[in-house]
Amino acid sequence: MNYMKDVWILRIGHRPERDQRVTTHVGLTGRALGAGGMYLASDDRGVKKSIEDVASRWGGEFKVENNVSWKKVIRDWQDAGGKVVHLTMYGISVTDAMPKIQDCEKVLVVVGAEKVPGDMYGLADYNVSVTTQPHSEISSLAIFMDHLFEGKTLDLDFEGAEIKVIPTECGKRFEN
Amino acid sequence: MNYMKDVWILRIGHRPERDQRVTTHVGLTGRALGAGGMYLASDDRGVKKSIEDVASRWGGEFKVENNVSWKKVIRDWQDAGGKVVHLTMYGISVTDAMPKIQDCEKVLVVVGAEKVPGDMYGLADYNVSVTTQPHSEISSLAIFMDHLFEGKTLDLDFEGAEIKVIPTECGKRFEN
Repeated sequence: MNYMKDVWILRIGHRPERDQRVTTHVGLTGRALGAGGMYLASDDRGVKKSIEDVASRWGGEFKVENNVSWKKVIRDWQDAGGKVVHLTMYGISVTDAMPKIQDCEKVLVVVGAEKVPGDMYGLADYNVSVTTQPHSEISSLAIFMDHLFEGKTLDLDFEGAEIKVIPTECGKRFEN
Repeated sequence: MNYMKDVWILRIGHRPERDQRVTTHVGLTGRALGAGGMYLASDDRGVKKSIEDVASRWGGEFKVENNVSWKKVIRDWQDAGGKVVHLTMYGISVTDAMPKIQDCEKVLVVVGAEKVPGDMYGLADYNVSVTTQPHSEISSLAIFMDHLFEGKTLDLDFEGAEIKVIPTECGKRFEN
């Protein structure tokens, strides 16, 4: 798979009892739309395993790093010249922010659960909102990634896939 | 709020014990991006209430119709001249399908949970995939809506809102 940019997800605020399904959707959305991996700022090997199981069957190199320190990930990313984009309904609009973000080669996308620590806003290079309405961190990430890559990651080819879907008007077609 | 098209969501396959959070995200994503309401093909008043509670505080007219018959909703919609778009990873790509769908004034977007009845594929006017990878029905819906409205619903104004976010570079700003 040819990543045009180096994009990773940082998932913060994940609660292992409550958020497994949503965090799994966050990771898979990132993967499907061109992210290289996800840092999980919480200890949840089940989520790591379920995302990496999908990745091993459907191809590509997507990785989940479990139980990271989110502040250290942000610092390391910025030290390496990357920019940190925090998705929040309070930020500036994705369409206004996008031209600047598209100039960055390395983008860390921070996706919070319900409660986000207050200092996240100051640590981010960009606080970006996908609509100013309450909806879903999964949809915010999806639209952000689609805009970042200008739709080019909607039909990525994943290397080493065991399963591949062949688009069809009705029903299901696979290639093995 | 000025809907450019009449778009509703039909959520099928919802299991009240397991899917409340994902279905709530589906409804809120639809609302934030310009849908008029959601039909829920399952009996779950908790989901209806939590989505409508958000809608009453954040404005607009979004409604949830609980416990509908999904086949009847599809038939009624088609009888009224509407088109039915089923989001599925097996369908034709959203970019290929979009020009035809954008010609429709009334669009019913069917969002399935894990298992979708086989006859859904034949009942839909369009089976549409947002990538051919497994990720999330929430992200598929978000990208579909954003493409359908060509980004114009990313900054909708919701009438009668008690709360309104003012986009800002850092922190949180509200208007009451």
